[in-house]
Order: sequence, then structure tokens, then C-alpha cells
Amino acid sequence: MLVVKVGGGVAIDWEAVCTDLALRWKREPIVVVHGASKELDRVSSLLGHPPVTVKSASGIQSRYTDDATMEIFTMVYAGSANVAVVERLQRCGVAAVGLSGVDGGLLRGSEKGTLRTRADDGRERVLRGDRTGRVTTVNAGLLRLLLEAGYLPVICPPALSERGRAMNVDGDRAAARVACALGADTLVLLSDVPGLLLDPDDPTSLVADVRRHEVGRAMEIARGRMRLKVLAAKEALLGGVGRVVLADGRVSSPVARACQGQGTVFRRRGVARARE
Amino acid sequence: MLVVKVGGGVAIDWEAVCTDLALRWKREPIVVVHGASKELDRVSSLLGHPPVTVKSASGIQSRYTDDATMEIFTMVYAGSANVAVVERLQRCGVAAVGLSGVDGGLLRGSEKGTLRTRADDGRERVLRGDRTGRVTTVNAGLLRLLLEAGYLPVICPPALSERGRAMNVDGDRAAARVACALGADTLVLLSDVPGLLLDPDDPTSLVADVRRHEVGRAMEIARGRMRLKVLAAKEALLGGVGRVVLADGRVSSPVARACQGQGTVFRRRGVARARE
Repeated sequence: MLVVKVGGGVAIDWEAVCTDLALRWKREPIVVVHGASKELDRVSSLLGHPPVTVKSASGIQSRYTDDATMEIFTMVYAGSANVAVVERLQRCGVAAVGLSGVDGGLLRGSEKGTLRTRADDGRERVLRGDRTGRVTTVNAGLLRLLLEAGYLPVICPPALSERGRAMNVDGDRAAARVACALGADTLVLLSDVPGLLLDPDDPTSLVADVRRHEVGRAMEIARGRMRLKVLAAKEALLGGVGRVVLADGRVSSPVARACQGQGTVFRRRGVARARE
Repeated sequence: MLVVKVGGGVAIDWEAVCTDLALRWKREPIVVVHGASKELDRVSSLLGHPPVTVKSASGIQSRYTDDATMEIFTMVYAGSANVAVVERLQRCGVAAVGLSGVDGGLLRGSEKGTLRTRADDGRERVLRGDRTGRVTTVNAGLLRLLLEAGYLPVICPPALSERGRAMNVDGDRAAARVACALGADTLVLLSDVPGLLLDPDDPTSLVADVRRHEVGRAMEIARGRMRLKVLAAKEALLGGVGRVVLADGRVSSPVARACQGQGTVFRRRGVARARE
């Protein structure tokens, strides 16, 4: 079982991703999770509600999601983006079925409600009405039902909060939860970078392998969005996933390359080999 | 088996619809199909792409759906509107799963491509690039899979065209196709009118019953959007559905009332009784 999360960056080569998924789909069951952050930024701005990014006290960046943002979020993620991925996979001959985390209570969790942020000058501020949260449970039964019937589930946020409403959750960490719930061997996180870089400006500074006891060090190296990917990798390994690969979604055969170990490979057991 | 189509008018009492569906769901399997036309008009206008309604040579009104409209259509229908219905049903304790017609090839058909329109002065015009079409096949297997596992499918357009892309289809007629494919006993079409009215301005002029041989006469009475509902009713009856009820979605217990025959009842067999 393979779980592939595809980021919401504009540089992702979706044609390559879907062609590759269609090939691999013949060999093993796959679940796709996707983002749409750049498209959300674009549509939010068009609708006169530009994105607001905040940094938590612990240094993690996130989108401040008020009610208006949540509505646009749902339009873009569960609407245009999810249908576009399902359309593409269908054209590649894959019986894809799109699901948001709200469907069948697929991704459940709790809303934070308030967001404690830290500005660049170090001042803390509390933002209320934030509809962001974290996934705590996955309805693996719904995914297995679809997989066993030959469908490829294509999942996106929002998730369903304990208050019974849509909430914004991080896609990488949601994908990690999905991978754990399904007992996946491999979780691939594709984005618009080659993996974890020692120097974000130098694509040749890739960290090829991260052993389990090195995850703390990887967290120190990571900057911005990459911190959430490392956190997702850590959570996936702790939840029993064998291997997590942070890899490049802008190249040809991105899924096959990632499965061959091209990218930053996090492993649950033993000493990581350079390539397999 | 009951199929309930809920229109996209602003006056629909969604709270009443979902509470009622949750009650009935305990007694029989239900599939919901919904529209979002008014919300689409609103968001299209906000995004600087106001709706264009055209009238076909045969007098049927429809939305001219170019690529830009199709994208907004997908955002609103499969995104905000579908997730909102699923959220509401979840809050009522129903394990609802939202699906657009693209998911698993649920609703397939063919695009018209060109639209032959007639202006009020009688002049015909051909509009190209129209992504509107008609549903020809339904993936009933996907619906049965979900129903048998205890999920309530919540379906919306777009459908999937033979070119493998999303297309706009009429929700009432799509619901009729779904009802036929599932062998439903009853199809309920809820909207913001009490049913077929002899005089659209007089809500007391309801046509209570339409026998099979009277459908042609009903089509003559119908105006505007109501013509598509009568057409959907006709197609449902021809496809084996026992009864179609055009009913009011603005009242309390709208599903129960419709199932009791409050509205305009189209029947496949025998003489229609006033109420049952």
C-alpha cells in the first residue's frame, strides 16, 4: 500500500504525476492526498480576501482560517482542485473517487479555535475564530471499501471537526495519518523541492537519508513549510509506516523516482541504505 | 429506495431537509442529488464572470458554460455546496459521502459543444465551447457499494464527458437517471415552488396529479425551469421509477410531505389517487 501526497505548488507536474500513478496503480493499491495552497491564495485574492499567514509560538507557519477563508478553502480544495485530479486520473484510465475529509467522517479531529501567534518582533498575539485543527482519526473502512472495489481514493482537506463542521488541516500530516491508518509501507510527499535541503537555495544540498534518531536534527535543518513535512514524516514513522520519502513533484516519473529513493528518505527500521 | 433532488434556490430550508432525511434514512436507503445554481450566480458575479442564460431553439433555458464558468461551477457545486450538505447531514448523524458525477465515472455523458440558441426576437445563434451535456449512464455499482456499507451518497454535477472532462448537466434530469439506475420507487424533486402550477403567480393553482398520458399537457403548462422538472419526471417514469413528486423545499418536513403526495405527483401506473 502506497500513500502519495501531492503538494499544492504551481510547479507540480500533474500530468507526470497522474501518468505515473496510473502505471503504479496496476501493481499496488494507492491512496492520493493533495493540496491546493497556491490556487487557494489566487482565488482568495480574486474574491477580495487575500491569505493571511501566521507563525505559531513554536515557529510553525500556517494559514489563518476564518469563516470566509474556510468557505473559499472548501471551494478550491474539495471543488476545483479535487475534481481536476480525479478528471486527470480518469483520463489515464484510473477509476478515481474524490473525497474531502468531511465525507463519511473520513478525517476527523478538533479545531484549535484560537491561534497563538508570534510576530517577527517576538510579540505574541492571540487570534480567535481560527478554523484550523489536527486530524486525530481516519475512517480507514471507507478507504478500504473503495480500494477493494477497485477505486483509487483522492483525498483533500478540509477535515470534519468535533463540532461537525469543516476545518483546515495540514495536508502532509493528514496524509501521514492516512498512511498509518491503512498500514501503508510507503508515504511519498511530493512538492516543488527535491527533498530536505541543508541549504534551501542549493538543490544539490539534499539530505538523502534520515534515520529514526536523526529526525530531531532534520527538524532543525528544515525551514518554513518543510518543517511540517518533517513533522509528518516523524508522525508516519511513529505510526508504523515503513518509509517516508520527501521528493520532487516537478520531474518525470515522480512517483517511481520517489519509490526508488530519490529524495529524502526517512526509515522506521535499521540503517538507511543510500538507494534501494 | 428514495432519490431526493434538492434544488439550488436560496429559499430551500436545508435544515428542515436534512433533519427530515436523517429521520427517513433510518427506514430506507436514500440518495441525495443537489443543485447550487443561485450560489453559482453569486460566486460567478463576484469573480467577474456573471452568468449567461440562454434559451434553446426548443425553448429550454440553460446556463452557457464556457471553460471559466465550468471552473467556477466545479468550485461551487463539488466544493462549497456539496461539502455544506455533507456537513449538515453528518451533524444529523448521517454518514453522508459527497460525490460529483466525475467521481468513479458516476455520471457519464456527452458534451454538446455547440449550443443553438434563440433570442427573444426569434433570431437563432450558435454558441461554441459550451461544456453542457446530458447524462447517459450512471455507475450504480458505486452507489450500491456505499449504500450497502451504510453511507448516504450526496451527488452533484458536474458529470464526466466522453472527452474525460467535467461538464455541466441538469441536476433534475441527472437525478432522474440516478433513480432509474437504482430502480428507485420514488423520486422527489424539491425546489422553491409547491410543484407544477397552472398559474406560476398563484401558489394555490397546484396541479396535484399527472397521469402518464397527461405528461404532454404538463409540459405545456410548465414555464422556465419547471419545464426541465417535468422532462425529468417523464424520463424517470419511462425508466421505471414508480412515482415522481415535484414538491416544496421551503416547508417543514419537506421530504415526508413529498412522500405523502404533497406536491405534483407523476405516476407510472394506474390512476393517480389524490393522496396516499
